[in-house]
Amino acid sequence: MSGDGGRKHWIGFDLGGTKMLALVLNEAFEKIARKRKKTKAHEGSEAGLGRIVRTIEGALGEAGLNKDELCGIGIGSPGPLDLKRGMILDTPNLGWRNVPLKATVEEAFGCPVVVANDVDAGTYGEYRLGAGKQARCVVGIFPGTGIGGGCVYDGRLIQGHTNSFMEIGHIPIQPGGPLCGCGRHGCLESVASRLVVSASAAAAAHRGDAPHLHEAAGTDLADIRSGALAAAIQAGDTVVEQIVRESARWVGRAAATAVNLLGPDIVVLGGGLVEAMPELYREEVAATARSLVMPSFEDSFEVAVATLGDDATALGAAAWAERSLRSAAV
Amino acid sequence: MSGDGGRKHWIGFDLGGTKMLALVLNEAFEKIARKRKKTKAHEGSEAGLGRIVRTIEGALGEAGLNKDELCGIGIGSPGPLDLKRGMILDTPNLGWRNVPLKATVEEAFGCPVVVANDVDAGTYGEYRLGAGKQARCVVGIFPGTGIGGGCVYDGRLIQGHTNSFMEIGHIPIQPGGPLCGCGRHGCLESVASRLVVSASAAAAAHRGDAPHLHEAAGTDLADIRSGALAAAIQAGDTVVEQIVRESARWVGRAAATAVNLLGPDIVVLGGGLVEAMPELYREEVAATARSLVMPSFEDSFEVAVATLGDDATALGAAAWAERSLRSAAV
Repeated sequence: MSGDGGRKHWIGFDLGGTKMLALVLNEAFEKIARKRKKTKAHEGSEAGLGRIVRTIEGALGEAGLNKDELCGIGIGSPGPLDLKRGMILDTPNLGWRNVPLKATVEEAFGCPVVVANDVDAGTYGEYRLGAGKQARCVVGIFPGTGIGGGCVYDGRLIQGHTNSFMEIGHIPIQPGGPLCGCGRHGCLESVASRLVVSASAAAAAHRGDAPHLHEAAGTDLADIRSGALAAAIQAGDTVVEQIVRESARWVGRAAATAVNLLGPDIVVLGGGLVEAMPELYREEVAATARSLVMPSFEDSFEVAVATLGDDATALGAAAWAERSLRSAAV
Repeated sequence: MSGDGGRKHWIGFDLGGTKMLALVLNEAFEKIARKRKKTKAHEGSEAGLGRIVRTIEGALGEAGLNKDELCGIGIGSPGPLDLKRGMILDTPNLGWRNVPLKATVEEAFGCPVVVANDVDAGTYGEYRLGAGKQARCVVGIFPGTGIGGGCVYDGRLIQGHTNSFMEIGHIPIQPGGPLCGCGRHGCLESVASRLVVSASAAAAAHRGDAPHLHEAAGTDLADIRSGALAAAIQAGDTVVEQIVRESARWVGRAAATAVNLLGPDIVVLGGGLVEAMPELYREEVAATARSLVMPSFEDSFEVAVATLGDDATALGAAAWAERSLRSAAV
């Protein structure tokens, strides 16, 4: 059936640090095919661009579609980005600089390509297709190895004039707090990221305070991932639970800040820590945020767990491409 | 010339805690007349509505215009507000509740009325006519007795789904900080408002550490206003200067938070403390904010002092009314 349906399909693409994902979507943004590849960032950006194109080709093949059936392609990428030119400027994550994502993919597939920050795309996905449907204002917070944020307001992503925005992981949350990866002190990430949680948990394991974690994952940060933390809590390591709740309280403090500034209907939580311990994490964030926002805001917002999981960025990138191309056409 | 020019003029109105101000503006938002009255909030909201109507009538009279020459009226009011219905819900400032501002003024003048939060209107005024002209994103921070905030993004005020937003005075800035007027602890206002500065300065005066302030204003908070603080610094009270700089550093921390979240081109500072000590305050806010934002944002924003002074809210309310009515007409 390929080639005869006009341009009705979308590609949503998620360029991750370790994996890339292409989804083929129909007009209703239902998934009709998917393709995953390893990113292999160390092979460099030119090889990476080739892998991106081949991943999309693979997904199209899986769906039995030709490239002339595509309306457009949305790509969620780590930043900082140049949104207009669709370039990766510099990603510490991938080690790539000045990568012409948009130009390369447009040339390969002959349709418009829209590039967005990966967390923004995920937040937009939750707004269009997930936990934040119908909301006027969605704030997304994604605590994982880093802590990303996004905001959809009146149907559009908030994107500052700079090439990155909603850097909620780097708001100064603890005066005089610990050194952050960005070089500042006391950023949200420096007190609440999965790395910080894992480091505290590793120390607890080393001290003998988290025996289940110690047995299952040892004391190497690289092995103490969100799933291992969740399993240790399940098994009875109450110290690990306290450490995770401490992280959630800092995130709740950041959520209160975002609520006071932006007045969202809903705060959507995603990312590794939340996916592994959704109810524990959500509850602690919500309770903390409610205790810190302006009293008149206390009941003005929901705190919900993201529903799109690993597909959020790819789905959101496609939906945002559709939205951007639609408003550009008006 | 009255009555024959069609609808070409605007009223900008600022409903303040002690004074109200009506400006008559031409198509280019140039001021052609102004009228001030005391608010006399204690006389109640019905009397207040009457005074609002008479103030606008007075300004129109001054300009030699009839009400049928008005395109619309913009009112900046303390909140919380119901923006759609143009109602004051409850203002601790005035002690008024459920006041039908929009309905009353529309009936009196037969033209559309748009109500906005006073600080939002001031921020929008700075965006349209003041320090933030041409910016994609303006964040306004107004440290005075309280600390208000506003944000214009892509030509529009950010207004949450709740009836108040950009409550930057109540972002939790100091974990475990002092009790705030809102009932929480450690809000920006609780460590940086003019009241806090005055209280610290009064204590310094009482201790004998601020002799000029003590001589000029005593130790009564009610007398230690921004002007008195500025004069004491000029006269050589270095402790007062340190206290003001401490406030500015907290505001700089809040500005860094807003920059990380919203990526503004410009942060505009206004309000009593800033007007009294513009360069000292601006410099300290800017230096602190630059030292705390994500390093890649360090040179992405300006920090400027508001230029519209006391007219910012009235001017901004009129310009926002024009913007709102224009987009409603599309």
